[in-house]
Order: sequence, then structure tokens, then C-alpha cells
Amino acid sequence: MADFLTKKEDNYSQWYNDLVIKADLAENSAVRGCMVIKPYGYAIWEKVQSELDKLFKQTGHVNAYFPLFIPKSFFSKEAAHVEGFAKECAVVTHYRLKNDPDGNGVIVDPDAKLEEELIVRPTSETIIWNTYKNWIQSYRDLPLLINQWANVVRWEMRTRLFLRTTEFLWQEGHTAHATKDEAEEETRKITDLYTHFVQDFMGIPVLRGIKSESEKFAGAVETQAIEALMQDGKSLQAGTSHFLGQNFAKAFDVRFTDKSGKQKYVWSTSWGVSTRLMGALVMAHGDNNGLVLPPNLAPIQVVIIPIYKGDSQLDQLSETAIRIKNELENLGIHVKYDDRDTHKPGFKFAEYELKGVPVRLAIGPRDIENGTVEVARRDTLTKEIVNQEGISLYIKDLLEEIQKSIFSKSLKFRDENIFSVDTWDQFKETLETGGFILAHWDGTAETEEKIKKETKATIRIIPFDSVEEIGKCIYSGEPSKKRVVFARAY
Amino acid sequence: MADFLTKKEDNYSQWYNDLVIKADLAENSAVRGCMVIKPYGYAIWEKVQSELDKLFKQTGHVNAYFPLFIPKSFFSKEAAHVEGFAKECAVVTHYRLKNDPDGNGVIVDPDAKLEEELIVRPTSETIIWNTYKNWIQSYRDLPLLINQWANVVRWEMRTRLFLRTTEFLWQEGHTAHATKDEAEEETRKITDLYTHFVQDFMGIPVLRGIKSESEKFAGAVETQAIEALMQDGKSLQAGTSHFLGQNFAKAFDVRFTDKSGKQKYVWSTSWGVSTRLMGALVMAHGDNNGLVLPPNLAPIQVVIIPIYKGDSQLDQLSETAIRIKNELENLGIHVKYDDRDTHKPGFKFAEYELKGVPVRLAIGPRDIENGTVEVARRDTLTKEIVNQEGISLYIKDLLEEIQKSIFSKSLKFRDENIFSVDTWDQFKETLETGGFILAHWDGTAETEEKIKKETKATIRIIPFDSVEEIGKCIYSGEPSKKRVVFARAY
Repeated sequence: MADFLTKKEDNYSQWYNDLVIKADLAENSAVRGCMVIKPYGYAIWEKVQSELDKLFKQTGHVNAYFPLFIPKSFFSKEAAHVEGFAKECAVVTHYRLKNDPDGNGVIVDPDAKLEEELIVRPTSETIIWNTYKNWIQSYRDLPLLINQWANVVRWEMRTRLFLRTTEFLWQEGHTAHATKDEAEEETRKITDLYTHFVQDFMGIPVLRGIKSESEKFAGAVETQAIEALMQDGKSLQAGTSHFLGQNFAKAFDVRFTDKSGKQKYVWSTSWGVSTRLMGALVMAHGDNNGLVLPPNLAPIQVVIIPIYKGDSQLDQLSETAIRIKNELENLGIHVKYDDRDTHKPGFKFAEYELKGVPVRLAIGPRDIENGTVEVARRDTLTKEIVNQEGISLYIKDLLEEIQKSIFSKSLKFRDENIFSVDTWDQFKETLETGGFILAHWDGTAETEEKIKKETKATIRIIPFDSVEEIGKCIYSGEPSKKRVVFARAY
Repeated sequence: MADFLTKKEDNYSQWYNDLVIKADLAENSAVRGCMVIKPYGYAIWEKVQSELDKLFKQTGHVNAYFPLFIPKSFFSKEAAHVEGFAKECAVVTHYRLKNDPDGNGVIVDPDAKLEEELIVRPTSETIIWNTYKNWIQSYRDLPLLINQWANVVRWEMRTRLFLRTTEFLWQEGHTAHATKDEAEEETRKITDLYTHFVQDFMGIPVLRGIKSESEKFAGAVETQAIEALMQDGKSLQAGTSHFLGQNFAKAFDVRFTDKSGKQKYVWSTSWGVSTRLMGALVMAHGDNNGLVLPPNLAPIQVVIIPIYKGDSQLDQLSETAIRIKNELENLGIHVKYDDRDTHKPGFKFAEYELKGVPVRLAIGPRDIENGTVEVARRDTLTKEIVNQEGISLYIKDLLEEIQKSIFSKSLKFRDENIFSVDTWDQFKETLETGGFILAHWDGTAETEEKIKKETKATIRIIPFDSVEEIGKCIYSGEPSKKRVVFARAY
């Protein structure tokens, strides 16, 4: 066990911070609330990007790029958007620096004040719908299925690496449709796509459903979300897909001529996931030795470490190691052969455990004699001796097995931590141990607000697949027709 | 010829603007100087990114991400950097909006003023070297070979799509080395890498060399650049690679312990290319019909268009078209089959010419009878009838041939437009027709400045491979040992 990590059981929050930093994923920068994503963390993010991007393109989406800056007045155009969206934004007011006449470096040039302030985008609905206005005239221009990979800024008072940072990286999809049905279908299609990605690539099971009115995106008609359970029993919103109705089309006057020649407002959606997913990846699978990366997103899937004394032994081992490396790479597996002579094997073992590399191969002189390799799994921390012959296919299967196993373990944990409760006392008690709580709610924002105030629990989702069931709101006792999912959340 | 494009010969500048907009590459946004990169333009940029990224990784570089914002005081730390770097920057002074008490949307909250203003990065040397300080202690931490893909902002008064925009996308490499030699080697390695990319992917020949003292990057010891000649005879700086000496290491106090235990300052480089390359791609190869894309960067390499009357004929053609499409895709070629029934073949032909698709296949009923396809080349606008049998390998070879041919044509143009001149009159006269001018210069900034003022020509590079040659400065008549390259430039 890595003794430089706080134990998960002792202080989960500190364990998370330690791990993000020690595993070289990210660190705080000189700018309050903004992080530096370090090369190893960024390599994982690149895998996330690349896999998601493939899924977007497979479903007919294309990428584009819209301005970083949004004129302040744009925010006021959609009433609910400006009212509900946090106003903590970075505001650009000037466009020039000048040398300080007193010789103290540079100062802001007061003569270079902008007529209208620019907001660093916290999300791009407004600038994008202002642009779509010129792109959409006829039904032939629809649907418009566009995604953007970008940085966004939301001024946060309390930040945590990946989970809540002032600047973060994300993708934001913005689609335009001729009909309500089509936009609703798109909203759900993306929720399904996110579910597929988070479950099958990140190895994290999710609950899916609709956000309550208080929790939905400002400007949306409906917000769908996927929620994942972290190991401390708190929920993390892993992605959202918004059905925006005609709200932004009306705010920016985006109309099209339909087949019959009638002018109609366009229907729309928006959806996004962010570097927050990196936090989920750490928190869902990590242990006291470090990260546990699912093979589908691991920048290094297999590491090979030689156990040797002296250069001539290393040469002999290297021949075998490189042969195995090449075999694995031919199967499309990412392999690192770590033959550094500056570090001992034990150090390397700990390092790759910390970094969550799914499979470690160790080869020593005895392995050369016996034609074997020691294969260690990061997720279970188990080891076995395997014949070199056929090793590459064996590893390929093993990586698939690990991917499944990581998901199964998370799923088991998640399922063991879904509780159905019927009384307020039970509710509060269950919250202390954590997990998802299925409970009846009277459907009012007032009750939701009171529950949040008293317990910090929020309604994470109203499940898509909830069955009708007559019950009473755990808080107000008023009648309720279905259970919703409560949890404390990141 | 596309009659909605201004003719190149009539007004090159207008032709460029028309083309960028009509070919759906980019457009101006609601924010002054910021562009929207449209899906087709962005697809080309994604190809640029992906190919460059591979080259960076093959040469041992990794990606990371640093903050968008830089504290104002950081800029003052490196004296030449703050002095020489343009001070036209976007300045963030506040971090919150609030509802206007008069009910007019939102206003900047005066209570949310930042203690220190933040600058939206115009380039990231300062924030990165402030970060590297914590990453580098020992020679074991070196070299650090990091690249970042990011947006940057430089407030520009006169902007042109891709060529000069307030916000643009780029990559910036920032490397740290133990020795001067190694940093110098890296600087040149990147110049070579950029040369390879621009010549072999973009199909544009470049001249390479060193910038004069006046033209070098603020904070660099030496700036290397690649310069490409556009069809109007103006030069475009396509990429720069800076040897920064120990300037930023000293400014941010970044030292390491070498093998002998001594503390030394780190040596460094930085280098970048940007969405400006998109402008070069348009201007270097485009013609009066539209874009001419080199196959290596074309999002669609081959388009197949059926020539048919009625649905049953289309079905028959589609069978063949889809078979050919699959064959081509199996060879890794990007193919679009355009069977839209909303547009006539002639419209489609013009559209794909405008968009620069390298190869167009047309299949009509007679082709089905004869087992043929009509193959049209975008670069030469030539057509030929080719047998369906073996078509995929034929097209594969043709794409390679087009890639080479586009480069050769540009190279021929470039070579025909390099002029060696020896008098001031000749110099001014030659400038009017455009091209690269090889001329003697006395080596002083004064002369360089005067030449620029009188003619708008600048020293683009001092060539790496220039031969020693005794001569006299075309302007001052003072002695000179080698010729440098002058041109008017974008």
C-alpha cells in the first residue's frame, strides 16, 4: 500500500486530492481555481475525448468552433437562462495593457475600455444560437448536429481539482431540429450515448433520468442526467442532455421555412460532459495503492518491467520483453517497456500501481529459463505465472476481462447502495451511510428545497423507468405516485 | 468557374474572403475579430491537428493543459518579453455579473473586482515557466517536452479570417533542457518537423531560416521560421520555433541540479503553429473554382456522384457506387457518396469543386453498361474514363500523385518567384510583382526599419543555408556577407 497516500477509509476527500496530485493527473495553478492538467492526466483526457468524439461522429455529429467571448447583452436574451444561470463569470472589460509610468511593470490601459463587456463563455448557447440564426433558413438546413470541444469558465469560490474548477475543458453539443419529436429523440440519444461511454469505457454504472424543475439547466424545458455513485456514497452528475424546446430559437429569433412553406421556430438540444469525468474516474475505482484505470481509457495498458542484475542480463531480458511488446502492439495494445536503470523494480511496481496501469508484466532470469512471465492485475492486485507462448492473446483477453470486472465491481457496489426508504427518519439515517435513496416526494420545489436545506441531499434524478407506486412524500406526507432518487452529491 | 467567387486575378484579397466564406470554412462572429470555424473548416483543422499531434508524439512530446488566464504581473517578469510583446490583450477585471437594478438585463458587479487583473493568454511562456519551476529539480526531470493545444487571444485592430483574428487556435510547445546544445537541437528539430508537415501534408514549399533581431519573438535568443509564398507573391509565416536560452528560466528562477550536483538554469524552447495555416492552405492552392485541398488533409478525399433519372436507375447505380466506396474505405480513403435527390449533378460538381475535394467519381447508366467510372481531378480539372476493375488501387495511386503534383506546382511557382536583386531600384521594382527577394543587407536594425517603412517589405528570414558572398547592402551600400530574404508578408 502506498504510504504517501491518505487512506481512503480515513479521509476520502484527502485521499482523492492526494491521488490526483501523486498520480500526476493535475495540480492547482498560480491562478485561483484554475488547474494545470499534467501530461499523464491529459493523456487520459485525450482518450476520453477520442472515444467520445468517435461516438459523436458515428451518430452524425460534426465539430465546429465558436468564440471564447460572449457579449454581455446576449445573456439577457433568454429570460430563464440569465435568471437561473450562475452569474459568476470572468468579465473582460479592457483590451490593452501599457507600461506603468512609475516603472512597476504593466498596468491596464484605462483608454482601452470596451464599449460592451465580454464574458468568457460559461456555456455557449447564446453565441451559438445567435450564429445559427444565419445558418438556418429552410427545413433543408436541418437538423444541425454540432459539437464543440472547448474550455469554459465559471467563477467558483470553492474549487477541487477536476470536480469543480474555474476553468474546465468540456464538449458541448448544440443541435437544431425541425420538430419537437426529433429534438426529444436527440436529447435521449445523447443520454444513451453518455451512458454507453461512462459504463463501457469508464466502467462506471449510472442511473438515468430527468432533473427536477429546480435542478434543470437554466433555459431548458427538460434536463436529462446520468448519475454515478462514488465510493464514499456521494453521487456525481456525469453528464447532462437538455431538451431546450424552442426557448433559444425564440430568444434569438431562429425560424425556418418548413416543407409546406410555413415559418416555424426551430427546436433544440444541448448537452455536455467535462473534465469532471476525470474526477469520477479517480473516485469510482481508485484504491489505497492509487488509480485503477479501466483498460479502455488507460494511456498505458500494459507495462513490462525487467528484473535483472547487470547489463548483460538486461540485454537478454530486453530481447524477450521487446518481442512481447511488439506482439502486444500488433494487437493494438498500448505497452510501455520500462528498462530505466535509475529505478529499482519495486519502485516501478509502486509507480505503475499508483498510475493505475491495468496489467504489469515482470520478466526475470528464471522466466527466461522457463519461458514464462509474471502477470499482475492492477484491479485485483493478483499475480500469476503465464507461459510466454500465446501471451499476447492471453493479455488481450485479460484486458477485456479487467474492463468487465471493474464495471461489475462498481455495479455491485452501486446496487448494494440503493436504498428504498419510506420515513423521514430512515431517510436521514440512510443519508449518513451514503448511497442513492429511492423515496417518495410530493413534487413541489418547496419540499425539495427544505430537504436540501436540512440534509444537503438533492433529487439527483426522476428515473426514466420508475414504476408507478402510490406512496407518501417522506417529508410532507403528501401523496406521491413514484419514487425519485435522492443523494448527497459532488 | 464559380461565378459567385471574385476572380483571383481581379482582387486576390476579396477572392480569399469569398472563398473562406463560400466554402464554409469560417465566418466572422458577433464578437469583433473573433471567428466561427464552421464544420467543414474545422474538419480540415482536425486533420491538421491529428497529423501534427502524431509528429509531436513520434518525437517524444506529450500534451498537457495550462490555464487560460495569466496574472498580469507574470508578464513583467521577463524584461524583453513584456517590452517586445504586443500589449493588446483581453483583460479580465471582474468575476461576477448581477441583475441591473433598473431592469436592463445584467451589469458587471462592481463589488466583484479582482485584486490582480488576469490576462487571457496571448502565449503561455510565463504561466508555464512559473509551473515548470515546481516540476524541475534535477537533471532526471529533464528534458521536459510538452505541447499544448489551446485557444489564445491577441487583440487585433484589423482582422482577417484565419490570417489574423483576435482569438485563434494553436499549439504551443514548451520544452526544458539541461544543456544549450540540446535546446538548440530541439529548436531546429521542430523547424524541420514543421517543414515536413507544411511541405508533405499541406503541399506548400517553405524557406527556412532565422528571424532578424527586430522580427524575433520577444524573449527569444533566436527565432527560426518557415515562410511560404502565397499566389499573390506575399509571404506567410507558417510556423516559428524559438530558442529561448535561459531567459525564462532566469525570469522564473527555474534551476536544476546537474549530475555533478551543481545548480544550473534550465535551457528552453517554445514553438507554435496556428489556424493561420488554414489561411495558407486556401491561399497557396485555391483557384477560381474554389479550394484545392491536398489529399493528405482533405476531410473528403473522394466524392462519388450518381448521374441518374428516376429511382430505379439510382438503385442500380448505388449498388456500384457503394461497392466502390467500400473498396476505397478498405484502403483507408475517406469517401462520400452523395446521392441526395434534392440537388442536380451539376450543382454537386460545383459544390465539391468549391470545397476542394481532390477526386470526384461520377457514375451514370452508360458506366454501368461499360464497367467504367468518370474520374475527375480537382487540382488539374481533368477528367478520364477508368475501368471499375482495379479502381480502388488506381484512386489510391492517384491521390498520392495529386499530393505530389500540388506540391510540385507550388514549388515551381515559388522557385520562379525568388529573385536575386542587387540595387535599390531593382528591389522596389521586384517588390511590385511580389515574390521572395534575395538581397544584401548591412545587418542593422536601422536599415531594416527604413526598408520596411519605405516599401512594407520585411526580412522574412536569414536562410540556414545561405552561402557567404561579398556584397553591398541594397539600401545603405554598406558591406554585407550574405543575402537575406525580403518580402511583403501577411
